[in-house]
Amino acid sequence: MTDYLRFLSPSGRHLHESAIRKMGTVVARTEDLVSFAAGYPDATLFPWEDFREIANELLSGRDLNALQYGPTRGYKPLLEATRDVLAGRGINAGLDELMITSGSQQGLDLVARVLIAPGDVVLVELPSYTGGISAFQNMMAELVGVRQDDDGIDLDDLDAVCLRERAAGRTVKLLYLVPNFQNPTGLLLSLAKRRALLEWAERRDVLIVEDDPYGALFFEDVATEAETRPIRADDTAGRVIYLSTYSKTLAPGFRVGWMVAPASLAERFEIAKQSIDLTSGILDQRVVHQAITRGLLQSLAPRLRQIYQDKRDVMERALRRELGTLLTWPAPKGGFFLWASLPAGQTDTAVLESALEERLVFVVGSAFYVDGSGHDKIRLSFSAPTLERIEEGARRLARVVRAAVGTSA
Amino acid sequence: MTDYLRFLSPSGRHLHESAIRKMGTVVARTEDLVSFAAGYPDATLFPWEDFREIANELLSGRDLNALQYGPTRGYKPLLEATRDVLAGRGINAGLDELMITSGSQQGLDLVARVLIAPGDVVLVELPSYTGGISAFQNMMAELVGVRQDDDGIDLDDLDAVCLRERAAGRTVKLLYLVPNFQNPTGLLLSLAKRRALLEWAERRDVLIVEDDPYGALFFEDVATEAETRPIRADDTAGRVIYLSTYSKTLAPGFRVGWMVAPASLAERFEIAKQSIDLTSGILDQRVVHQAITRGLLQSLAPRLRQIYQDKRDVMERALRRELGTLLTWPAPKGGFFLWASLPAGQTDTAVLESALEERLVFVVGSAFYVDGSGHDKIRLSFSAPTLERIEEGARRLARVVRAAVGTSA
Repeated sequence: MTDYLRFLSPSGRHLHESAIRKMGTVVARTEDLVSFAAGYPDATLFPWEDFREIANELLSGRDLNALQYGPTRGYKPLLEATRDVLAGRGINAGLDELMITSGSQQGLDLVARVLIAPGDVVLVELPSYTGGISAFQNMMAELVGVRQDDDGIDLDDLDAVCLRERAAGRTVKLLYLVPNFQNPTGLLLSLAKRRALLEWAERRDVLIVEDDPYGALFFEDVATEAETRPIRADDTAGRVIYLSTYSKTLAPGFRVGWMVAPASLAERFEIAKQSIDLTSGILDQRVVHQAITRGLLQSLAPRLRQIYQDKRDVMERALRRELGTLLTWPAPKGGFFLWASLPAGQTDTAVLESALEERLVFVVGSAFYVDGSGHDKIRLSFSAPTLERIEEGARRLARVVRAAVGTSA
Repeated sequence: MTDYLRFLSPSGRHLHESAIRKMGTVVARTEDLVSFAAGYPDATLFPWEDFREIANELLSGRDLNALQYGPTRGYKPLLEATRDVLAGRGINAGLDELMITSGSQQGLDLVARVLIAPGDVVLVELPSYTGGISAFQNMMAELVGVRQDDDGIDLDDLDAVCLRERAAGRTVKLLYLVPNFQNPTGLLLSLAKRRALLEWAERRDVLIVEDDPYGALFFEDVATEAETRPIRADDTAGRVIYLSTYSKTLAPGFRVGWMVAPASLAERFEIAKQSIDLTSGILDQRVVHQAITRGLLQSLAPRLRQIYQDKRDVMERALRRELGTLLTWPAPKGGFFLWASLPAGQTDTAVLESALEERLVFVVGSAFYVDGSGHDKIRLSFSAPTLERIEEGARRLARVVRAAVGTSA
């Protein structure tokens, strides 16, 4: 038998498995499971009828390019429409700064591949999105965590960590952030900190990777559109690489995300993408383009905000009712996630193990920490399940947590 | 102004631009251009009406998973259907050895990322597919060329090159091959050599990366299905990683390819894909699955073979009529390409430059050689243009070549 380990490259050996994707496998296998695990959008909210009409038109055969190879940068009308979407967020980007990616995950991977040499430091929030962590780790980056406050990353700690790493002789190239309704915490980075970060990046000669999948999904009772203004919108020095996606607002099945980067970097990302997948799916891009042209992004957004806010309300109320103060969390101001602290003495992995026996799944907090901490946290996603399943999941979680506290008491 | 070059990793600096993709940009800009450049399938042959019916059904909203995130390995029914497609090619593969990729280009990239450390040697044919070359080069592989005969790779040269590289202290891990109707030469690797390669790979402890996009597109006047039997079909020792795609037989716009690898490697590829793009487009995968279920692959294949063969005939006849023996080529036995040798003294780049003035584009031969040679060759793709445009292109090429020969004579 051939021993294949010998053939792996150092980075091939070092690969970091996604905790969330692993949970997905569990979900697929268990009946009557309540999943608070993956951050899937609610598929009942997709504009199915519009998509069907659009696909019907695109597949008429009248335009032979609708299923052909497409340009690596992306389908030009979609790039133009995306430029307009960006303008609505306060970002002025030229077409030479813009590229369509196969989901915004590909944007993360491209940043890692083109910028990260083994051992380079990427600063990340504690906690941070696992898909970002994996993308950087798989290119052998050193991930170093920075504390967060209720209004986002701790600027003093950020600077201290950066200086400490540099003093230790390491190259600090990037700061990776999810400023809007962070995955996993649901936190919103304050506008004052956004401005301060730009000044800091310039002073310390660091690039900011701003990952913004959830910006449009603010909850109108506690947040405003103005508070979601991207860091990139005020970036006059060219310090920000901005990533976003249509996965949370239209549908993830199309795999249509995008990145905005200084033109000379965008060109490198495009060349890298040529050998990675040649082009993102052209039919998918054209469907998304038509959806934008029909005004669906704008007409859907208020409804999405309302429904995800309702789901958050139901989850918060159910957890409070079932668990009182045993579980605590910062109020999510948007997005898909509730980030809960377990009662003292309980750990994420043990609680998950018991939860699986109750047919409930979520993601352990420690998966989001690059420093080995976070075992007192769990991430509960309220976006995909129905209101009834959220209630049912809260009851199951309550049984698990109460039993654990009872045992350890 | 920020100097972004400083932020590039060594591999980010080293990125290799695709000669073919670059040509694509030229194509998009020039009117009345005849393109013999990109190896695009003929989009008039796509089963548009079937795709439309399938999409219509999938987008009814009855199955909410049709636009959701999907499993990284691929949509299970498509994996099963692909296993059956493989069985038809003589390959027995378990589901644990199979993964859907975003085009077979992603398979190449995954192989490079998981297996190649900077400086590792990948042996490639002289000439070889540029997308393969780029994928390996972008992971900092050393690409070393091996001669080809009319029936494929030269086995003596292969062994000599392998031993020479190892004697020089380098790690030779992979041999990359396109055995069926190679891109760019159109050559078919003989069955005897296929068997010999398996024995050689075992003896020299090398893995074979078998890239097979064109196997189903043999020309029935000069080749048989039996002659396209994949190397992987007789691989009892687990030496072959097999890549293929539905891009040439159904449509490239869906970006649905696949890879077959020993299970322990397939697992690594899956983990790598998690952080690369999470999942390939699920709607695309489901459309392709339905197309296979409807029997389209089987019902389309004879027609595709016939029409591409007709196009080959028209190109060969037109080139002979217009250029006599000034241009020579091995007869393509399948696939999309005619690989032409220029008259003595003419170079690919000079001829291309003149051709662009005549509004004709093709790919220079040197783009396919890792040793700097190939300037006496050009790749002419007959797959996408109509018969009339092939005739017109041949006339333009004849003007260019005759003028060049006249000048240099």
